[in-house]
Amino acid sequence: MSVYYGSIEAGGTKFVLAIADEHFNIIKKFKFATTTPQETISKTIKYFKENRVSAIGLGSFGPIDLNLSSKTYGYITSTPKVGWKNINLVGQLKEALDIPIYFTTDVNASAYGEMKNTGIKNLVYLTIGTGIGGGAIQNGYFIGGIGHSEMGHQRINRHRDVLTFEGICPFHGDCLEGVAAGPSLEARTGILGEKISSDDPIWDILSYYIAQAAINATLTLAPECIILGGGVMEKPNMISLIQKQFISMLNNYIDLPCSVEKYIRLPTVKENGSATLGNFYLAYSLFTKE
Amino acid sequence: MSVYYGSIEAGGTKFVLAIADEHFNIIKKFKFATTTPQETISKTIKYFKENRVSAIGLGSFGPIDLNLSSKTYGYITSTPKVGWKNINLVGQLKEALDIPIYFTTDVNASAYGEMKNTGIKNLVYLTIGTGIGGGAIQNGYFIGGIGHSEMGHQRINRHRDVLTFEGICPFHGDCLEGVAAGPSLEARTGILGEKISSDDPIWDILSYYIAQAAINATLTLAPECIILGGGVMEKPNMISLIQKQFISMLNNYIDLPCSVEKYIRLPTVKENGSATLGNFYLAYSLFTKE
Repeated sequence: MSVYYGSIEAGGTKFVLAIADEHFNIIKKFKFATTTPQETISKTIKYFKENRVSAIGLGSFGPIDLNLSSKTYGYITSTPKVGWKNINLVGQLKEALDIPIYFTTDVNASAYGEMKNTGIKNLVYLTIGTGIGGGAIQNGYFIGGIGHSEMGHQRINRHRDVLTFEGICPFHGDCLEGVAAGPSLEARTGILGEKISSDDPIWDILSYYIAQAAINATLTLAPECIILGGGVMEKPNMISLIQKQFISMLNNYIDLPCSVEKYIRLPTVKENGSATLGNFYLAYSLFTKE
Repeated sequence: MSVYYGSIEAGGTKFVLAIADEHFNIIKKFKFATTTPQETISKTIKYFKENRVSAIGLGSFGPIDLNLSSKTYGYITSTPKVGWKNINLVGQLKEALDIPIYFTTDVNASAYGEMKNTGIKNLVYLTIGTGIGGGAIQNGYFIGGIGHSEMGHQRINRHRDVLTFEGICPFHGDCLEGVAAGPSLEARTGILGEKISSDDPIWDILSYYIAQAAINATLTLAPECIILGGGVMEKPNMISLIQKQFISMLNNYIDLPCSVEKYIRLPTVKENGSATLGNFYLAYSLFTKE
């Protein structure tokens, strides 16, 4: 009997469902906008009732409860996304589908997908898009202590040219996400990020902030590489701006394991597929363990 | 035959050598100022030739090379400390003493000692003294990817009242160490840290910086607690200033695993003994494995 694995990318703006064969090739995919929990979760259940799989990897926006001994394990917890606070995502899916579900954050799933695609077992994945998040892996295991990373809300140094901008994070104002996520561009300029001309100084400011996140990940986790995904990174020269700022900031304090071009890089899995690939492998790891 | 374990706390300002019985009770201790590598290492060798032990735990100031497959494994590498760059610390000790030596950073040793003393297996230890360093443990294992943490040089947000101060870090100027290590107090006020009155506003600025390091450790590593050691933390109300700033910065974005008083705390091992205790257990772990 053929084995199929499922992937749920539970995003704040959209859900991406996918089915893979036992070689992790995508055979089906279904995207839809995230609306109310009730509507979004029932659509997901319906899809996986019509397309049976042996196990699911579920990478979700957070914060989420990953503590297996907690009453709210499987919940999306204190998210600012209206209606989604304290929603039992895993509980509802398991009750309806009755299959193993590997639950983690969306960026952990992306990090896992990149690990599987590259063979690199010590890496950090930062996504810079509508929000900013980070997932980290050491020796093939997720870093996250008794919960999970929330690197998007770290404190970094403000750029001296734009000290008056308060930042858009509803919790912290000018944490990393507050000053460097996609929506901060429009909040600061009144122009949608994709419409801002490529020689606008804002891109230097943004790369200054993202480079600091890479510095902090380097000096805390000492990975083999840092992968930067998300919509903001689709801007053509963004990666090289960040690499340059990173090198000048690090100032040779430690040796990198490779060139900065290899150390700070774009995702290797094409078409934003890192999380989906990661979810398939996480489903596989759960299914083969049970 | 009785078993004894050795500890070497290799600090930039002083070396602390100690011997423990098999119950990790200190039976002998010897401190001396760190001078030239040649003089300091030969004193250390002499001490352990006169006081034979079965294995040694060596926590050293860094940066150091912990990559077992590297030609410079066991070296202190790019330190600003004059004369100590690229010194083969472990090689010289092993050649002379011919016993197993567990090599790690001084703050990793402190974190390990606190783990053994509390039973908490997911923790971060930050030392704020002449320099700033951080060690982290997850599920009983050191966080450090292919090297080790260097959290003291992370980027954090500058306090708006003192933007003109450039910071004292020789590599980065105003990284965390540059604006919050002990010597930064004197660099900023012209007065030795211990002589600055306790109601001086500088302590609020310092706690603002250290609280950010705790926020970044929380949002990257999700530990069960953060332990703050080092000379700066000996100032009576420093810990409560930091706890207050931390709570207001976090702004309920995530739930802490316990009260902030338990979450951000002073070392539990008395008389600055965390690293020494950690070194004994690391020596034990190596000796019992061989």
